[in-house]
Amino acid sequence: MSDGLEILPVRGIGDVTAGDDLAELITGAAPWLADGDVLVVTSKIVSKAEGRLVEVPADGPEREEARQRVLAGETARVVARRGNTTIVETHHGFVMAAAGIDASNVDKTHLVLLPRDPDASARRLRADFLARGLDVAIVVSDTMGRAWRNGLTDVALGAAGIEALRDHRGEFDPYGNELSLTQMAVVDELSAAAELVKGKCDQVPVAVVRGYPRHTTGDGAGASVLVRDSAGDMFRWGTAEARALGLREAASGSVPTTGATPDPEAVRRAVALVAADVEQVAAGIRLRPAGTGPAALIRVGADAQRLRAALLAEDVPTDLVIDDDGVTLTFGVPA
Amino acid sequence: MSDGLEILPVRGIGDVTAGDDLAELITGAAPWLADGDVLVVTSKIVSKAEGRLVEVPADGPEREEARQRVLAGETARVVARRGNTTIVETHHGFVMAAAGIDASNVDKTHLVLLPRDPDASARRLRADFLARGLDVAIVVSDTMGRAWRNGLTDVALGAAGIEALRDHRGEFDPYGNELSLTQMAVVDELSAAAELVKGKCDQVPVAVVRGYPRHTTGDGAGASVLVRDSAGDMFRWGTAEARALGLREAASGSVPTTGATPDPEAVRRAVALVAADVEQVAAGIRLRPAGTGPAALIRVGADAQRLRAALLAEDVPTDLVIDDDGVTLTFGVPA
Repeated sequence: MSDGLEILPVRGIGDVTAGDDLAELITGAAPWLADGDVLVVTSKIVSKAEGRLVEVPADGPEREEARQRVLAGETARVVARRGNTTIVETHHGFVMAAAGIDASNVDKTHLVLLPRDPDASARRLRADFLARGLDVAIVVSDTMGRAWRNGLTDVALGAAGIEALRDHRGEFDPYGNELSLTQMAVVDELSAAAELVKGKCDQVPVAVVRGYPRHTTGDGAGASVLVRDSAGDMFRWGTAEARALGLREAASGSVPTTGATPDPEAVRRAVALVAADVEQVAAGIRLRPAGTGPAALIRVGADAQRLRAALLAEDVPTDLVIDDDGVTLTFGVPA
Repeated sequence: MSDGLEILPVRGIGDVTAGDDLAELITGAAPWLADGDVLVVTSKIVSKAEGRLVEVPADGPEREEARQRVLAGETARVVARRGNTTIVETHHGFVMAAAGIDASNVDKTHLVLLPRDPDASARRLRADFLARGLDVAIVVSDTMGRAWRNGLTDVALGAAGIEALRDHRGEFDPYGNELSLTQMAVVDELSAAAELVKGKCDQVPVAVVRGYPRHTTGDGAGASVLVRDSAGDMFRWGTAEARALGLREAASGSVPTTGATPDPEAVRRAVALVAADVEQVAAGIRLRPAGTGPAALIRVGADAQRLRAALLAEDVPTDLVIDDDGVTLTFGVPA
């Protein structure tokens, strides 16, 4: 039964207000803290101590208007919206419902914002403990939803004195297989573990994880390394928002393209989808009216625009060039 | 320091093979197990005990071909693909890279599949412990990636003897605010906590959480309640896949619609996007050629199709009706 962990709640911290010294409040409530402990601190009390509160009307339509203004201020980008739910990317890069703005565990005339820089908050708090002779790690945690799975879990917004990721890359399992893709988000797992003893209404804003090897001496890189950059993110937009992006691209005017040679299979799939009568020409695809008269000419314009969308779905952008005999879609280079 | 949790690794379980009695192996390695403990069991040893292995070539292109066949069999739906990464929805409803198929901690001629029904696996294992006089909860866990955040965490695939969600709805915080949206995925948090003592190469496939109040007497509803149904899922498809869906819709032929009255603001936005010269008519929007000659007729067909895509992006489907004088987009009812 050795090598286990303990998860210990810190009770009796009480209300936190702007300017409070969290290290003092926490050591007062938990005089048993020891070197090597990982303190998982709910971001809300960090925010309160840092004065990250906004005054809002207690009720009425003015409250909702004020909340929307606050939300806009905390939002870098709206990721997805459905009904009353707005998932946004915050200025920190966190993707969260309502930018993490919270109306719970605060009086009705205030909203609590996330700490401005949770890694900096964690570093400051760790320094305050070091000044008291205690070498602890700090994780600033909050509750988040997830894609695909019901229910919320606590994850880390900030960290100091512990590395956010534990890297198994380069290790081998007992069968000799290299663990090539395994980076564990341990500060998220520590936050989740701590939540199990916190509860939501119990006024337990801090839990201590005892026995976890921290693998770092300094502050470490912080929890910001957990924010996936947009280039690596396959779920940058909600499905409805990404579908609308595609539709708006299809609605956009044709842009001049430079010559490119697309995958013939991709072109074949696009042509099959539209079922248009086309001719392959040197630089692209030629469409001619299927009959005589004005309606046939209008029809070929509509078909060409449809084929342009189908090609774009295959990552083959084209320029739409119209003349009196038909349309040429000239191949461009994918963005 | 009361009311805390302990997270205890179970070492010395050794290799698990098909037909092994996991309850016997675990009690042998952890004779200190007690009523009320939550056992977090890595799905891999559950799969191995259940014989959920597939033989594959140890190397060469045949291995990759076999792996792709196995992946197709475990896949209900490809959610997103980029480069070598394929995120799929499994037949269970889990959204995971490579359907959770694993080549680590197994010899090179086998792949390990997820248990067929992890909740049933958890219930069976719990029953096996009950038969030995031990009333424990079982969580079957696995490692998953997440949208938006780097690093992996362990989550629950199956559960028995513990409720997957802890519901705070209907509770009030000390300020009288109702906690309206808070359902915590506690079995995911327990899985994450357990991972902290497991490691990846340490042959610690089971961890015990001691001291967590289970709040249920029977098996409970299982971890399947954590699978979000597609209707509630704002991230059903990867961004690239959803964009392509939109583009393919824009490429699709016009479908007959029934009369509807769309939001005039939505129509105004779509018309502005396309910058087309249009006329509002009773049932929709009318476009006429901007000049004389064949090219102007072709142009109005292309513009009408662009406007149709822009309207669809605003959730206003239309039917495209061509005559010799121009095009009418008639409003339909959103799907």
